[in-house]
Amino acid sequence: MTINLISDTVTKPTAGMLDAMMSAQVGDDVFKNDPSVNALEEKLAKMFGMEAALFFPSGTMTNQTAIKLHTQPGEQLICDKYAHVFNYEGGGVSFNSGVSCRLLDGHRGMVTAAQVESAINPPDFYHSPLTSLVCIENTTNKGGGACWDIEELKKIKAVCEKHGLHYHLDGARLWNALVAQHESPEQYGGLFETISVCLSKGLGCPVGSVLLGSKEHIYHALRIRKILGGGMRQSGFLAAAGIYALDHHIDRLSEDHQKAAEIGEELTKLSFIKKVEPIETNIIIFEIEEDFMSSAHFNSKLQEKDIHIISMGQGKLRMVTHMDYTNEMHDYFLETLRRF
Amino acid sequence: MTINLISDTVTKPTAGMLDAMMSAQVGDDVFKNDPSVNALEEKLAKMFGMEAALFFPSGTMTNQTAIKLHTQPGEQLICDKYAHVFNYEGGGVSFNSGVSCRLLDGHRGMVTAAQVESAINPPDFYHSPLTSLVCIENTTNKGGGACWDIEELKKIKAVCEKHGLHYHLDGARLWNALVAQHESPEQYGGLFETISVCLSKGLGCPVGSVLLGSKEHIYHALRIRKILGGGMRQSGFLAAAGIYALDHHIDRLSEDHQKAAEIGEELTKLSFIKKVEPIETNIIIFEIEEDFMSSAHFNSKLQEKDIHIISMGQGKLRMVTHMDYTNEMHDYFLETLRRF
Amino acid sequence: MTINLISDTVTKPTAGMLDAMMSAQVGDDVFKNDPSVNALEEKLAKMFGMEAALFFPSGTMTNQTAIKLHTQPGEQLICDKYAHVFNYEGGGVSFNSGVSCRLLDGHRGMVTAAQVESAINPPDFYHSPLTSLVCIENTTNKGGGACWDIEELKKIKAVCEKHGLHYHLDGARLWNALVAQHESPEQYGGLFETISVCLSKGLGCPVGSVLLGSKEHIYHALRIRKILGGGMRQSGFLAAAGIYALDHHIDRLSEDHQKAAEIGEELTKLSFIKKVEPIETNIIIFEIEEDFMSSAHFNSKLQEKDIHIISMGQGKLRMVTHMDYTNEMHDYFLETLRRF
Amino acid sequence: MTINLISDTVTKPTAGMLDAMMSAQVGDDVFKNDPSVNALEEKLAKMFGMEAALFFPSGTMTNQTAIKLHTQPGEQLICDKYAHVFNYEGGGVSFNSGVSCRLLDGHRGMVTAAQVESAINPPDFYHSPLTSLVCIENTTNKGGGACWDIEELKKIKAVCEKHGLHYHLDGARLWNALVAQHESPEQYGGLFETISVCLSKGLGCPVGSVLLGSKEHIYHALRIRKILGGGMRQSGFLAAAGIYALDHHIDRLSEDHQKAAEIGEELTKLSFIKKVEPIETNIIIFEIEEDFMSSAHFNSKLQEKDIHIISMGQGKLRMVTHMDYTNEMHDYFLETLRRF
Repeated sequence: MTINLISDTVTKPTAGMLDAMMSAQVGDDVFKNDPSVNALEEKLAKMFGMEAALFFPSGTMTNQTAIKLHTQPGEQLICDKYAHVFNYEGGGVSFNSGVSCRLLDGHRGMVTAAQVESAINPPDFYHSPLTSLVCIENTTNKGGGACWDIEELKKIKAVCEKHGLHYHLDGARLWNALVAQHESPEQYGGLFETISVCLSKGLGCPVGSVLLGSKEHIYHALRIRKILGGGMRQSGFLAAAGIYALDHHIDRLSEDHQKAAEIGEELTKLSFIKKVEPIETNIIIFEIEEDFMSSAHFNSKLQEKDIHIISMGQGKLRMVTHMDYTNEMHDYFLETLRRF
Repeated sequence: MTINLISDTVTKPTAGMLDAMMSAQVGDDVFKNDPSVNALEEKLAKMFGMEAALFFPSGTMTNQTAIKLHTQPGEQLICDKYAHVFNYEGGGVSFNSGVSCRLLDGHRGMVTAAQVESAINPPDFYHSPLTSLVCIENTTNKGGGACWDIEELKKIKAVCEKHGLHYHLDGARLWNALVAQHESPEQYGGLFETISVCLSKGLGCPVGSVLLGSKEHIYHALRIRKILGGGMRQSGFLAAAGIYALDHHIDRLSEDHQKAAEIGEELTKLSFIKKVEPIETNIIIFEIEEDFMSSAHFNSKLQEKDIHIISMGQGKLRMVTHMDYTNEMHDYFLETLRRF
Repeated sequence: MTINLISDTVTKPTAGMLDAMMSAQVGDDVFKNDPSVNALEEKLAKMFGMEAALFFPSGTMTNQTAIKLHTQPGEQLICDKYAHVFNYEGGGVSFNSGVSCRLLDGHRGMVTAAQVESAINPPDFYHSPLTSLVCIENTTNKGGGACWDIEELKKIKAVCEKHGLHYHLDGARLWNALVAQHESPEQYGGLFETISVCLSKGLGCPVGSVLLGSKEHIYHALRIRKILGGGMRQSGFLAAAGIYALDHHIDRLSEDHQKAAEIGEELTKLSFIKKVEPIETNIIIFEIEEDFMSSAHFNSKLQEKDIHIISMGQGKLRMVTHMDYTNEMHDYFLETLRRF
Repeated sequence: MTINLISDTVTKPTAGMLDAMMSAQVGDDVFKNDPSVNALEEKLAKMFGMEAALFFPSGTMTNQTAIKLHTQPGEQLICDKYAHVFNYEGGGVSFNSGVSCRLLDGHRGMVTAAQVESAINPPDFYHSPLTSLVCIENTTNKGGGACWDIEELKKIKAVCEKHGLHYHLDGARLWNALVAQHESPEQYGGLFETISVCLSKGLGCPVGSVLLGSKEHIYHALRIRKILGGGMRQSGFLAAAGIYALDHHIDRLSEDHQKAAEIGEELTKLSFIKKVEPIETNIIIFEIEEDFMSSAHFNSKLQEKDIHIISMGQGKLRMVTHMDYTNEMHDYFLETLRRF
């Protein structure tokens, strides 16, 4: 029994999802003739109360496209120092958009409206890059799956409006936040100009991410998707999995959260664990007391048991619970932890 | 009965391909753990006698990645005026790579080694962009599915080596050329530094394109694919279709070519057809004698019969035969043409 | 006596210009506190009847800035195949702006409104780059110093307005066209959104080019100039030369034109000269009958006499008359030609 | 008597410098035929013991060119959070090179080798940008004119060599560091791959900056300078000022440093001054105790006396001493401070 807690991206489709894929109606989505892709886009736009949506091969491409939509080369976006767009998209912000990032020193990937406002460059001082965009990530990946307080997001929106900045949400794991915080997609649809959501993480689809925005944003996004090479043909097979997941896999995220909480509880009991960060959703970040045991040693001990987790550098380790992490695996893993 | 001759990208998987997809072993390809994707990449690299391969969501992304691998911003590539990379990739050559195109006035999308050599800018005259890459397309899409003489491609390779230029093949429809010309993949693998091939055109897969090159090229291509947003998770479902197609759908391309030839023959008999370009593979480009009948009128007449073809502008029309264009459709279409 | 006809950029300031430079009032132009730069910008804006102007270190930078002002990465501009922006700005259109060039096959660097219109990509066909700018060059450098018919420029403007395209004039040698055609700067100021003019060619200044446009264009251009590194400090020394040249060196361009015409006349009498292109201003482009004498040989014969001209490749040679090409030099050069 | 302490860029040429400019031998530097420019480049290369040099219109362009020389789009450079290249070059790092900045939290603009090493992204983890360059600034502008310990710079060089990173010095005010630390240009020439030095700050020239490096770097830099629009014609007038300054204006920088120290001493005596940062060269950064007096009020009080300084935001103010800040001005200013 292999237990893979490296990421929630490793899930494989369930039988039901595979059935939905297999029986999907497809067409050529480059000509926007794929009925499954079109249905997925409409379904998501409706869920969020936004005008339009566009299917992409990855969350990186939805974020990169949104950033390009909102900026000009030379401009600057504001985000937390942990932001995925800065750290884990290969330098795409500068490669694709010629844009720099002004990083804020937030708490678990989250910042305040006051921090955002103080980071805006004066528009007439042309020596500094022109600030034009604020990017939020919810839940925060490197921040340990933390969920934003929606009231702070509203305050940041007010700052954006006051200073004429655009406002994008990297919602790769927004589903986890919605379930954990008992919030609705419309609450976010009303806040942001563009939102990217992933189907291939907690929702368990094989491939895909969707960008939400106004009709005009999506009209321009189609062109950028083409330029980046994200136009696919009969992608309805992938979209069908997405529709299935939206119908069947959102509520069950609370099970992943419950398991993550239980793992965290067990970790705190271990003497060689220095710190377990608060667990709000499906991500567990913790530190080893390296005097007792090196994180590499802990990791290799787990690997002997065919349990796989990921190092984040600087002594931090990360686990992510997901659909394919079963009850049976969970019991075995908790037992393994207890025996350390 | 809808007859769609707009492109060979409109095909849907056969029952056998769908079976292969749905029984595919998958994993997370972003971590290079998808066995089906890995198998497809190895299979193709072996077929072409090249070191390595990488799966992409589209042919545009394979070409754009190859161009980025071979160039620096400000440099110039040489290609025919009909080249897909210049005309139909959304301006990506300049967007993604900051590179300009020196277009050659070729014949049906094909140029001579002498033309290439005369278009190279002198490297020390720094007012002109530095020429660094030659891009070939085989078969030529806008050139009417024409196949290159491989001897000319060898001469162009010699020009590239003499002047230190890189050499890339856009082989979106290379399979058609191989079948039509009785050539082997190895012949091309030995000629070019990088080759892109599509699975979603003549081969009938839903999605996907593969870049071939040296291990070092593919190592760097993985990073560029990430930046452009082409890293997908359980893409093995798509790769499995590719493996199936390589095993079952190459030889049958001659049927598409045969049908295209028969359509061409019928078109030449029609008085209002001004010119049918030579048909070498599965693409038919022809012109209407607009004094007799406008191309829009001809197009609408076909649409009344639920037959769909595409306008290329300036009075030219294009049809493409493919797997889903059945014998039954073919008989009906030929009959329809005869009745004009 | 060295005779340098390589370009009109080789001129050195006259005593009067040097006086003006050395007595210039200067300040820090990065803070827009240089009175001489400000005076030059105001003087030129007024001459052209345009709102504002900005001083740059080179004509390449004025053109590159204007192109950036009018375009987004991925878009396409339309220009003649001889255009300086495509051929002689180092590939900057793609490097600085991520833009591609659609080249038209014009006559001596000049095209028709019909050619421009037929080259516009359909805005909704997102496979093709979005056309957003038309660039004109007057006089045409590689076109042999030819002057546009202003009526055709008006027709092209109408095409631009109809299709929502921007319209820029590379007026590096516009002064020569104004003098040759008896036109006024205002006629051009009313036609184009932005115009770049050079001070360092026919006008004889050491350094400098000026971009003209609306206040909003120039506001944004200041930021782009900063990014490209064109912000200079006490550049008033250079601007003072520009003011002097505008007052003293425009009318005298007719002398350069007269000399160029006389050289052309002499060239046509030489048996080994195949063709002399029509001479409208200060540029002479001609071809050698290579069976009689190679262009390299002709060039070396001139060099023996300390006369320097430039090869344009493909058997073409170019000479440019200018302020520092004196009457004495002219007599000597004509005599030299007669003796061939 | 206007006292301008906003920057050391505001200086005007002395009579001696103006004489040198006026009598300069010039040529067309785009063809590398300007003897004064060539002489300046050779002189500086020799001073630093480096192979070659290239004259530019600004320090921003020398830095931007160096960054482009050392990086590919998508890559990341490491610098202090105060770095000029990140803060005051208009976002050019991302605009011109597609590169992102990893900012370090240094002390007065200076960081340690350990900080640099810990900020390097693992080269095989392709989700993160590839780290390829370290940029140092000496003296630090926003860091208050602080001078690096050259031993730390050697340690950082060792880190760069270990990890295959490039190493660039933004030496806009390196002259001040050399004088203050009693160091020689060769010590820096042996440490860095490329160095940019400014002529228009402490040295008192009107315009210009020079990039130093290997012959190969400068060969490529010439092309990049052309693309950015930094190729100027008879720029020898500006270069001549540079030669004069190197001969006459380096040693005298100690006078500016002395005056800055004396101003600092006076400021510390004022009750409403919260903090004066240590003064090592010609830059004075200090903070007002805003409960007693707002920085805006202090600034306006000085302006009433025709004394001009600059606000750096967040309650900080900056003054810079320079050649045109005379003894007379200094006495008056100290007296003015004493009377507060």
